[in-house]
Amino acid sequence: MDPDGIDRRGFLALTGGALICTIAGQEVVADEGKIDVEGLSTQVKVPPKVAAADWRGGEPGIRRLASLGPGGQTREYWIAAEPVEWNIVPTHRDQMTAQKVKYGKTKFAAYGYRAYSAGFKAPLGEASVPGPLIEAEVGDTVVVHFRNKLKAPVTMHPHGIFYANEMDGAYKGKWTDPGGFVQTNRTFTYVWEAQEGTEGTWLYHDHGPMDPLPIFKGLFGPLVIRARGEARPDSEFFLGFHTWDPSITGLKTTYYCVNGKAYAGNTPTLEAHVGQRVAFHVYGVDNFFHTFHLHGHRWKEPDGRIADNKTFGPADSFRVEFTEDNPGRWFYHCHVFQHLHQGMNGWYLVS
Amino acid sequence: MDPDGIDRRGFLALTGGALICTIAGQEVVADEGKIDVEGLSTQVKVPPKVAAADWRGGEPGIRRLASLGPGGQTREYWIAAEPVEWNIVPTHRDQMTAQKVKYGKTKFAAYGYRAYSAGFKAPLGEASVPGPLIEAEVGDTVVVHFRNKLKAPVTMHPHGIFYANEMDGAYKGKWTDPGGFVQTNRTFTYVWEAQEGTEGTWLYHDHGPMDPLPIFKGLFGPLVIRARGEARPDSEFFLGFHTWDPSITGLKTTYYCVNGKAYAGNTPTLEAHVGQRVAFHVYGVDNFFHTFHLHGHRWKEPDGRIADNKTFGPADSFRVEFTEDNPGRWFYHCHVFQHLHQGMNGWYLVS
Amino acid sequence: MDPDGIDRRGFLALTGGALICTIAGQEVVADEGKIDVEGLSTQVKVPPKVAAADWRGGEPGIRRLASLGPGGQTREYWIAAEPVEWNIVPTHRDQMTAQKVKYGKTKFAAYGYRAYSAGFKAPLGEASVPGPLIEAEVGDTVVVHFRNKLKAPVTMHPHGIFYANEMDGAYKGKWTDPGGFVQTNRTFTYVWEAQEGTEGTWLYHDHGPMDPLPIFKGLFGPLVIRARGEARPDSEFFLGFHTWDPSITGLKTTYYCVNGKAYAGNTPTLEAHVGQRVAFHVYGVDNFFHTFHLHGHRWKEPDGRIADNKTFGPADSFRVEFTEDNPGRWFYHCHVFQHLHQGMNGWYLVS
Repeated sequence: MDPDGIDRRGFLALTGGALICTIAGQEVVADEGKIDVEGLSTQVKVPPKVAAADWRGGEPGIRRLASLGPGGQTREYWIAAEPVEWNIVPTHRDQMTAQKVKYGKTKFAAYGYRAYSAGFKAPLGEASVPGPLIEAEVGDTVVVHFRNKLKAPVTMHPHGIFYANEMDGAYKGKWTDPGGFVQTNRTFTYVWEAQEGTEGTWLYHDHGPMDPLPIFKGLFGPLVIRARGEARPDSEFFLGFHTWDPSITGLKTTYYCVNGKAYAGNTPTLEAHVGQRVAFHVYGVDNFFHTFHLHGHRWKEPDGRIADNKTFGPADSFRVEFTEDNPGRWFYHCHVFQHLHQGMNGWYLVS
Repeated sequence: MDPDGIDRRGFLALTGGALICTIAGQEVVADEGKIDVEGLSTQVKVPPKVAAADWRGGEPGIRRLASLGPGGQTREYWIAAEPVEWNIVPTHRDQMTAQKVKYGKTKFAAYGYRAYSAGFKAPLGEASVPGPLIEAEVGDTVVVHFRNKLKAPVTMHPHGIFYANEMDGAYKGKWTDPGGFVQTNRTFTYVWEAQEGTEGTWLYHDHGPMDPLPIFKGLFGPLVIRARGEARPDSEFFLGFHTWDPSITGLKTTYYCVNGKAYAGNTPTLEAHVGQRVAFHVYGVDNFFHTFHLHGHRWKEPDGRIADNKTFGPADSFRVEFTEDNPGRWFYHCHVFQHLHQGMNGWYLVS
Repeated sequence: MDPDGIDRRGFLALTGGALICTIAGQEVVADEGKIDVEGLSTQVKVPPKVAAADWRGGEPGIRRLASLGPGGQTREYWIAAEPVEWNIVPTHRDQMTAQKVKYGKTKFAAYGYRAYSAGFKAPLGEASVPGPLIEAEVGDTVVVHFRNKLKAPVTMHPHGIFYANEMDGAYKGKWTDPGGFVQTNRTFTYVWEAQEGTEGTWLYHDHGPMDPLPIFKGLFGPLVIRARGEARPDSEFFLGFHTWDPSITGLKTTYYCVNGKAYAGNTPTLEAHVGQRVAFHVYGVDNFFHTFHLHGHRWKEPDGRIADNKTFGPADSFRVEFTEDNPGRWFYHCHVFQHLHQGMNGWYLVS
């Protein structure tokens, strides 16, 4: 803008954070069209402990399991990271405003986590955004056999649950453990422990060397740890608030989404009945701050305040619970008006 | 910016959210000068239930009232939405920095809610931003006779208080009830119920088919529900934090405001005395996150923490209470420095 | 962008808040290169009470001290505001991503608060960003002898602690007290009182006539008020989350920082041992909202919720405490991915 001032990238960084990250010394900038995550990833060096690890049989996971004392149940998951063709606005319409969504193509090549049966024998559904729900009760051990079927190294990093250092699924440069850099076609076994004091609604996401690009392409999902023996709500919903950025999708606009979809009629249409105990588990996983607002309802916060709207940031996660008492067709939405109007809204139908 | 990249609107959306909304398929973009809300509104179709409704006598409201059991008091309001010439910086000065505010004209054609005496016989003051305070105690029924005197369909949508589905004042495309699309010169009677568990500081705002444009032009106001028999604070203040955007006002800058005004000496100058029980009721109603900060004072949060600054987002609302113990000339302000310096500050005078 | 629309500054204000403030009628805009704070400051008029004050011997402070009843300890500090050459990324590397930080020069002329021994006899270290920790227990009186060695008027304004009106260190235009406009080479004595109900983690910062520029150049620091006799944690860390803006530094990018530094290996590397009681004191002091996230750990919020990530805004401050139970090399970071990847991350090493 100003020939004597800072350059275009600096300007972008100033005016809204268009510099997403730097990978292997290359800046990834939000307005430069579609980012080639796989291409970039070939320039990232394999960390020494990753190269030296014995990758047969998920050894670190098995060692960790052997070292644990007796506890609750062991909950075992087989999850792969896979490419998935994703349609953000399948109906091409916004039911909130009764109009067509105008930005052309709404499909792109996303990444998703996908659940499999034991031993990766058979998929239990499609790869999806968000990935499968991981559930535990306090006292349980969660074992996730994670296979990377993408052409870039990725991981699984959980929030809230206890994990030993080498189980954090985080890339740490030269200190990276094998679970922080899972290469194409490798399988790593994460062992996480739902110790006392970890109960809550959480999320998991990639935290590998390409972070945040794989997250922005869809690699995140919900995790819930319940108190031991806690009754499950009659209806419960897990809602990830996030954005699809044009630099990631190659599409023409930014979509503000719930669970990968934008605009009412495409985002999850939630259903409940009067008299039910209902829980909304909400988390954020983009660069923005959002609010969770629900029409016609309110709830008690842990501090005793009554609320019908709640601010949260990236990786914040929380649970809203109430007994359903109000039938009808209701909106849930982010109350940042711009986000609401770029897709972050959906229906909650109570009969 | 980049001929091979996304277009200008996409760029704007990326770099700060300049795309406000899409109405009847037309994008409303923040840098395109003054938006013609009335003109745009002629292109929005009247929803079927709205067209078919019997608009004589506020029927839906009367039906709802008849169905309610005996409760507390019925509190009846007559409120109209009206055009109002609004001056954001009447003094053209910022007393915080002792300087002239430089952006030229500070008046524009806003929208305001206006209170009337029973039956809309006489106005009880000017239309204003924010609109009149709506008050109730737990157990009360609030009846709002709402008349639209604007040339675009608008509504009243409350937070916090209980309302049946057809009383939510929200446009819902083809499912819109009459209260969600009140056309020019029509009157709709909203019935809202301050049930147990709705106590708190809330807001109300337009949620009609032109949302968020009428809100950004001034259609919002405070709502408070007190515990039954609760003593009122000795001094209390209702403060809406919001922004006037150039695309709405046609003016040369964005004003960061409290109750429609920008810069100390224009924003409300609040007054209290040592020894008084004081309450600040604060809410946000724009696209931004703010903080409420008060010099020389602090308060206990519901969770027991002591605070002198509090983050809140769009449609968050809360109450800060303390016993006044510190005389002098104090600032209240948003602690986002940019917002503070574009007008979001005011005086609190304690004698 | 649009010749018929608003001008460039208005555009910048819209698209990300590049207008920082207006000083003496001159707009300070974020993309216009390095701001001349000293030059601008010569155009700000000295307020009448400041010009008329007797500046010998910190009179207002001594008067205030004399008026206080007997209490706890008086804790006396000698602190100067000074220029300091500051290196944001001394290693020029980011250990989180194992890569070089590419934006050239990382040094600039910052401002820092610097602690001195009694009577300003000898410095107790370098001027630094943040400034020295100010500590008190409930019941104590904090006396800060503040000397301005910068070429622009600055102040010290505390959060949380009690202070009488003339001790707030805030510029208030024509109502400014001497403590709100401390000119070059002058010394002002602030008296602040850690009354009952002020306990917590807080911050202090400049709030003089050039605000927020001196803050953005480094004039802020931590303040903690403990309960009387409260045991200190075994390890505790004070972490200010903030940004260095190119308009302030003259450097080529925005750095998202913790305690003045950007990128793991440059930001504070924190250390603790298993079994220790650990406290993180966190505050924000820029235009942005952040989150505090710590890998491998979680804590109980005052409302009873368990969290491993917490949203906070400018001037919010809080304390996270837990007993250390998890050895290893961990990250702490802001979970806004863009901030994380522009430097807001660091190491927490547990042995």
